[in-house]
Amino acid sequence: MKTETKQYDLIIMGAGPAAYTAAIYAKRYGIDTLIIGEALGGLAADAHKICNFPSKPDVSGMDLMRDMLQQVQDMDVPVVMDTVIGIENKHKEEFVVSTMNKKEFRAKNILLTIGTKRTHLGLDREQEFLGRGVSYCATCDAMFYRNKTAIVVGGGNSAHTASLHLAEVAKKVYQIYRGPKLKGEPAWIDQVEKNDKVEVLYNTNVIELLGDEVLEGVCIDKERNGKDTINTDGLFIEIGSQPDKIFSERLGLRVDAKGHINVDVAQKTSVSGVWAAGDITTASNGFRQIITACSEGAIAAESIFQDLQKTKNG
Amino acid sequence: MKTETKQYDLIIMGAGPAAYTAAIYAKRYGIDTLIIGEALGGLAADAHKICNFPSKPDVSGMDLMRDMLQQVQDMDVPVVMDTVIGIENKHKEEFVVSTMNKKEFRAKNILLTIGTKRTHLGLDREQEFLGRGVSYCATCDAMFYRNKTAIVVGGGNSAHTASLHLAEVAKKVYQIYRGPKLKGEPAWIDQVEKNDKVEVLYNTNVIELLGDEVLEGVCIDKERNGKDTINTDGLFIEIGSQPDKIFSERLGLRVDAKGHINVDVAQKTSVSGVWAAGDITTASNGFRQIITACSEGAIAAESIFQDLQKTKNG
Repeated sequence: MKTETKQYDLIIMGAGPAAYTAAIYAKRYGIDTLIIGEALGGLAADAHKICNFPSKPDVSGMDLMRDMLQQVQDMDVPVVMDTVIGIENKHKEEFVVSTMNKKEFRAKNILLTIGTKRTHLGLDREQEFLGRGVSYCATCDAMFYRNKTAIVVGGGNSAHTASLHLAEVAKKVYQIYRGPKLKGEPAWIDQVEKNDKVEVLYNTNVIELLGDEVLEGVCIDKERNGKDTINTDGLFIEIGSQPDKIFSERLGLRVDAKGHINVDVAQKTSVSGVWAAGDITTASNGFRQIITACSEGAIAAESIFQDLQKTKNG
Repeated sequence: MKTETKQYDLIIMGAGPAAYTAAIYAKRYGIDTLIIGEALGGLAADAHKICNFPSKPDVSGMDLMRDMLQQVQDMDVPVVMDTVIGIENKHKEEFVVSTMNKKEFRAKNILLTIGTKRTHLGLDREQEFLGRGVSYCATCDAMFYRNKTAIVVGGGNSAHTASLHLAEVAKKVYQIYRGPKLKGEPAWIDQVEKNDKVEVLYNTNVIELLGDEVLEGVCIDKERNGKDTINTDGLFIEIGSQPDKIFSERLGLRVDAKGHINVDVAQKTSVSGVWAAGDITTASNGFRQIITACSEGAIAAESIFQDLQKTKNG
């Protein structure tokens, strides 16, 4: 274990819009900040096409996140690409963060912007077929389905955009949804319903995954054309996401019923020195968007600045 | 008075980041929306240089707002450039908005994103010298001060950026501040203090404006080099901003002590059908930034969508 002797004012855990916006604000406030994050962009980077980020029409999630990361790096905020495996509140008002690459970093404040993880269907063999036909990211994997058949499971915005994205390359896309009516943005629903390649199966659930080495088909609980199976090359599971509770449990943070971290209007959690922003939190009226995550990151940085000033002057 | 017979789902009053982001979201939700706004961009457009908008490093306020407006117009949201002079809650659940150009528009919902107005010093002749040496917008007017002398009044971020902007063209800039220590972002303070052309006068107030037809100088209440006057070609007043109370009073909205509109987490005001977002509100922990205004606009649009769905299904 290699421990940095330096104590940062702030360690931001995450690699999405909340993390990067918080870093931009923190740096301009003179807060000595380190970002520790895994893959670039968090869930935002998975978005095939983003149409509602103000001033950036029709940008891919990956491009938007790359621009934000570049901005952070141009401002000389250090970014460590690593996986956090532990946080300890060792001394009063000091946190020690340890990573997969056997490093330790110390800070007065922690900002959790760790987002949420894709919800699984919970079927047998779902894990086994991951990367062999099962995917949770159409943006990442759609290109492998040129002229093939793909199934998207889900009835919300991420399912719609996955279907549309797949329809650009695949021969045929089934969107399977357990409900009677698609949810989310009417603009996406309209495009899904009008797309010749996309067939929506309502009131239907995938109940079994079929295949030998790789996924070859699925069983459904409502017959389509007299059959309860559909042959497919790919299954994209887009049924939402949920918070990872490891760090909130470790730090003893108050969370809501689903595990989202409770924050006040200043993005402060129930534990002193710990702040949270973005999809992992209860803020922004539960409306989890890139723009709301950015805003929460900015507010958190401002609150941390105020807090550090108080400590300095107190 | 020309009244449109059409009833919109939503009229957004404003022309800043909250208005445009709300319109982007509203349009994608299929909400029939009209924007009525005055000058492009609200206060945001006055910003000489914005360094903290995620994904857009070093953009001018005007350019950022132009990009957002373009995006809104490309989405075919109608934008009327006009001044609202009245709102009436005529029938139950219908608002009638009348404008300077003698037009009337009707809507089920109103979203107020009317921002704040610059605070005045309250000196005699301040109004008289407006446009003749007195300005509230360095971005708009700095170019007229090439090789001239200018005074900036204020100790916060907008004063700092005004001084720096003026220092790029002017011969000499005095920044006059009533307090002993500049406030706001350390990054801006640092640049002001290091700039050879900018001289900061602390614990000092401008108490009188001097000049015949145009501003020629100011009296200050603390001597500088044994004199209580400073000759200047321009005076930029950058001492903050305050909400315009006309519409909140007319609609009977609950406001805070300074007149900012009280909103709940859904951006809903105390009056049914009236929503508010951006600088005019109490949201985002009172942290009034472009990114927080955008986020509030998005949240408002989502809340209005939910509300319209309920009405439709109810």
